[in-house]
Order: sequence, then C-alpha cells, then structure tokens
Amino acid sequence: MESFEVVTIQEGSKTRKFSPVSEEVPLTIEVNGRELATLLCSPNNLKNLITGFLYTSGFLKDITSEKSVILDSERWKAMVELTEDGLKEDYIFKRVYTSGCGKGILFHNPLDMAMQIKYDDDICIHNEKILDLMKTFQKQSDEHQATHGVHGGALATSEEILIFRDDIGRHNAIDKVIGEALYQHVGLSDKILLTSGRISSEILSKVLRCRIPMIAAVGAPTNQSVKIARKVNLTLAGLMRGSRMTIFSGDGRIR
Amino acid sequence: MESFEVVTIQEGSKTRKFSPVSEEVPLTIEVNGRELATLLCSPNNLKNLITGFLYTSGFLKDITSEKSVILDSERWKAMVELTEDGLKEDYIFKRVYTSGCGKGILFHNPLDMAMQIKYDDDICIHNEKILDLMKTFQKQSDEHQATHGVHGGALATSEEILIFRDDIGRHNAIDKVIGEALYQHVGLSDKILLTSGRISSEILSKVLRCRIPMIAAVGAPTNQSVKIARKVNLTLAGLMRGSRMTIFSGDGRIR
Repeated sequence: MESFEVVTIQEGSKTRKFSPVSEEVPLTIEVNGRELATLLCSPNNLKNLITGFLYTSGFLKDITSEKSVILDSERWKAMVELTEDGLKEDYIFKRVYTSGCGKGILFHNPLDMAMQIKYDDDICIHNEKILDLMKTFQKQSDEHQATHGVHGGALATSEEILIFRDDIGRHNAIDKVIGEALYQHVGLSDKILLTSGRISSEILSKVLRCRIPMIAAVGAPTNQSVKIARKVNLTLAGLMRGSRMTIFSGDGRIR
Repeated sequence: MESFEVVTIQEGSKTRKFSPVSEEVPLTIEVNGRELATLLCSPNNLKNLITGFLYTSGFLKDITSEKSVILDSERWKAMVELTEDGLKEDYIFKRVYTSGCGKGILFHNPLDMAMQIKYDDDICIHNEKILDLMKTFQKQSDEHQATHGVHGGALATSEEILIFRDDIGRHNAIDKVIGEALYQHVGLSDKILLTSGRISSEILSKVLRCRIPMIAAVGAPTNQSVKIARKVNLTLAGLMRGSRMTIFSGDGRIR
C-alpha cells in the first residue's frame, strides 16, 4: 500500500489526512523466452499469480511442467521455463479481451499520454452536487436493480447526468458512454465521468484519452491512477458513499 | 436479462423462485477486415461500445474517421471501416492483459471444457457453514480493510479456509490462490472457491479448468456462467450477503 495525502469530505466538511491506496504494478510474463502477457496486479505473491495464471489460462499442464520461475521485481518481469510438453494439448491461443469487469487491453502508455494532456475547458462543482449526482447515478440502471450484475458509467455536467450506460464490464460501460458522447458531439473537457467501479490505470487512461478533467467513482483508485491524475491535475474522487467521498487528486475543482 | 429458476436461502429457509440474470455476449470487432478483439459485454448499445472502445483504446482518431459500423447480432460480430488516417498516430499496439478487475484473456473455450469435466471427488456443505466461511473470508484482507481497493479469492474445505489471496484484480486473486494450491499439491476437486467479485464466463472457466465443484461469490453471475455451471453440475452460489444467498446451479451440494 502507498500512503497519499487526500481530502475527505463528510457531511460537507473537508479534512486533510493520509490515506492508504492499493499498489498496482505491470507484471510482464515471458514463457520459454516469448512474451506472453502483461498483467496489472498487486505486487504480492507474484509467483502464485504466475503459476495460477498459466494454469487457469490453460498454458500449464501441471505443476511439474514448471521448470523455473525467475522474478525480476525491479523491472516487474517474470521469466518462466516450462518443459516442452508443459503446454496443454487443448491449448488454443485465442485472445478474448474479456470484460467480466475489466476489459483488459491497453494500446497506449498512460504516462506518455499524461505528458500531452491539456484541458480546453474546465469544470468546478460543489461537493454536495457531485454527491447528489452520484446518488442519482446509482439509481439509473434497472438491470443493476434487478440483477446486481452490471456496472454503470455516466457523463455529467456540474448540474445533471447527460448519458448513462451499463454493462457487465465496467470498462465497457465507460466505453459505451464515450461512444454515445462522440456520436452526439458532446464536448468532454468540461464534463465529469462517473463510474460504479474502481479506478485502475486502465480506467484513468480512458479518461485521459478523452481529456475529461474529472472522474468520480464509487470504488477506490490504485496508486498508479492517483499518480497519473496528480501529474496532469485531473480530479479523482473515489469511495463515494452517501455523504462521504475521498478526493485523491485535484481537489481544487470540488468546492 | 435472462430469467433462471434459482434457490434462495435466507435465514436458513430455502425458496425456489425465478431470478433475472444479466446477459453476457462475446462481441468480436473487426477493423478494416482485421480481427482486433473480442469483448465480453452486455448486449445493449453495442455501437456505442464499439466506437467508445476504439476511441478510448487509441484506435480511432475522431468520430469522422469512422466510415461505417455493421453489426451482426446473430454472430455477435462487428465490421468497422475506418478511414485510412483514422488510426491515431500515437497508437501503439501493446497488449497489456490488465487486471484492474478482469484480467481479460481467455485461451480456451469454456463450453469445450465443460464437455470434458469430471469431478474426481466431491463436496457437500451446510448452508449456514458456507455463509460462515464467506463472513470469515470477507475479513481476511487487511489491505481491503485499509483501501477498499482489492478483491479477495480463497480455497476452502467445507470446514475452513485453506488459502486466501488478494489483488487489485479479481481474476488475479483467484489465480494466486490456484497457484499456491498447485505448489502445495492441494487437491481441488473437493474444495470451494470463494470470490469477492462477480462471476462471468471467464471466472467460471478458471473454476472448470481446476475441476473445482463449487464457487461461492459475493457478486452476481452472468447468464453464460449460470448456463455453463448447469451443464456440468457445478455449484454456483452468488449474491452472498449476511444470511442470504442465491444458488444459481447445483443446489444439491448445499444442504
């Protein structure tokens, strides 16, 4: 965990304090010299993760097929040696970018993008208003009410929600919102993105790419998303529940 | 949404009723004739999803670059035509199998696997006991208590939790548990997998691959995971909160 100085708002009163945030690291896995995947993960029990990932993804036949796992914790790189017959016979290298929750694919480097960001417009919102928007947001999905099985995403002004979408994947819900905003030619640089999920660096990348200056989430951010948000003065509010929220970055936009 | 007959348990009493479950479909996106990705998603607003995904992933420069999107809802396939200069210049085709929540990669077809499944052992558990295990499970992660930013996964017998792991990604948490179980040579076919997350077909695939006969989750399943679980008589319990849970498949293993 990494500790950040944050601003919490509860019942309208602001407090500065230190808050622990979960760490996120990119772990690149090489199998028999070939790069297989990069997982964004918590930096604990990484050998467990590697073995489990290879096994549940169908690469590893059984534990005896794993000759060695060498972990380089400075570069977050793992070199795995499997026996020649270690790959399962029914192994099909079919890439499905799934979205049970995370979509799991990044085509760019968020930090490279962070360097380029410039907001054309901007936004400022009262803390009570953003909590109100979040309350409205959480009632928008009939499917969520019925199944508890979908995430929501929304684009809002400082006054109201403009676009709401839901999906079994939280990345998808956000992508649907952005897709509709593009069709409608809605400007993004003075809007707020709301999400029911947590904020990893992949979610923050989407917000950066769209030049949206504020993201507000029911869930918690990772340390990487907090760092990127601070680098570009993007407002990141999380853990929004009832009359309470934590502002991890850019609290100047929330009065 | 798809309706399934399920068994709910509340305060120890079993009720059969119909319950709506969120649908999950695999949407394959082809860009200029080249297969790009398959997203597991909810089957609504798919054109929004495609445009938003292409834009936030850095493929689409702007909406005017999108010449056409043809959606085949029978085969869940989208053919997208972008203008030649529609791809963003800073586009880097770097595949990062992320895990902000979902890891987002399947190397096999869960239904093919379902055909092969055979449990060597089995398990039976009292409904109060599994609710107790879940209560214990939810207090295991110090990091979750501190940050609310990680998911948990565990392997349990009908009596106790054997292995617990947490991670910013719910897939990773499960993979870590399985990795450790493989190292310890723990048999899996008479165990229960616990997860703090929701159950999509990707999560169910992991359980199938490990021949674990029961999964219990705080979250909800998708219709695909319910269908696969029923095909192989795998016990799938979800929405476990306090003294309440819903059994979507294989209720015979829960007394």
